[in-house]
Amino acid sequence: MKPIALVGIAGGTCSGKSLVARRLTEELGEKYVLRINQDSYYRDLRDLTLEKRARINFDHPDSFAMDEMVAAVDKLLAGKTIYEPVYNYAEHIREAEPVKRQPRPIIIVEGILVLDDAELRQRMDYKVFVDEDADIRLARRIRRDEVERGRSAQSILLQYEESVRPMHLQFVESSKRYADIIVPGGGENAAAVEMLANHLHALIERRSKKTR
Amino acid sequence: MKPIALVGIAGGTCSGKSLVARRLTEELGEKYVLRINQDSYYRDLRDLTLEKRARINFDHPDSFAMDEMVAAVDKLLAGKTIYEPVYNYAEHIREAEPVKRQPRPIIIVEGILVLDDAELRQRMDYKVFVDEDADIRLARRIRRDEVERGRSAQSILLQYEESVRPMHLQFVESSKRYADIIVPGGGENAAAVEMLANHLHALIERRSKKTR
Repeated sequence: MKPIALVGIAGGTCSGKSLVARRLTEELGEKYVLRINQDSYYRDLRDLTLEKRARINFDHPDSFAMDEMVAAVDKLLAGKTIYEPVYNYAEHIREAEPVKRQPRPIIIVEGILVLDDAELRQRMDYKVFVDEDADIRLARRIRRDEVERGRSAQSILLQYEESVRPMHLQFVESSKRYADIIVPGGGENAAAVEMLANHLHALIERRSKKTR
Repeated sequence: MKPIALVGIAGGTCSGKSLVARRLTEELGEKYVLRINQDSYYRDLRDLTLEKRARINFDHPDSFAMDEMVAAVDKLLAGKTIYEPVYNYAEHIREAEPVKRQPRPIIIVEGILVLDDAELRQRMDYKVFVDEDADIRLARRIRRDEVERGRSAQSILLQYEESVRPMHLQFVESSKRYADIIVPGGGENAAAVEMLANHLHALIERRSKKTR
């Protein structure tokens, strides 16, 4: 069966995009939502030396194989199965085995730059931008990268200033302009999650009535 | 019957607040929505000379009788009838005859400063901020005030620079922080209106099922 709606959820690093998507999925029920993360479509850098890989700007749109992501979304929207790549953040390559994904009524594409890509954007029925103050996002990022990725605060800040922040201003923040709604405060914003969930639930109900 | 939800719709001058509220009312149906405009609660200035009235800063929170508006909202939320003042913009006074308003399932309070008022804000179930670029809002305001109110562009700009803009930055823009969702592009933003309408419709449906 073909999906009912494609929802894009963009926002800066650590803005709460994934939490919004997760809460929506919980509200609607797992079987109604398929989430596709833009990170899965990071380009495979196995042809570069490890040193060169580390120098890539992972916050620039060119780091993502967007053609491939758009083609996958088109397949899902046509009711077909896809194989989503599994990205290995440590080595910057794709794992050998992709994951089989079957379309569900609501498809969510999430990632810092999903609203920046014109092709992907044109396919979206609803465009959401999750917004959070830059200092709060930075604080979260330092916490996450120190704890989960074992990096020093100094190295996190260097990357933040050299690529995360400039790319955010140039590509992420500027894509807010395309949003249908802006959600401040991310996944902790229960009222916004409730509104989005009720809206998407209504779309699901409407189709189930039609096909009954 | 007591209302189901109080929705606040704030935003700068000419941001499209009223259009969003009107479109929502059209989507849901007149009998389900009561709209209360903050402008109705402008203070009556009949005790001042006309000259002094003209010098009042109508974009400052103190120009509104917010206690009175909050008391009216409380009555509506308790299922009671209110009498909404009718404001005369030309003389800055209230007309002799207020208008009788009966509660409906959804109460919308709209106005530049409805999210700025802590008392009113606390009573809202959903807080919406309609956002539009400042230059577009200014262009609309000049058009509206020249055509509808017969004022010169020069006098409109003077008021804009002296009170509208500084009050916007100090009180309106800063109240965006309290919004649950931000709607860019105002009433022309059909996707956002659809999402809000579906959400509110779900609340109405849910209660009608309960009481059936």
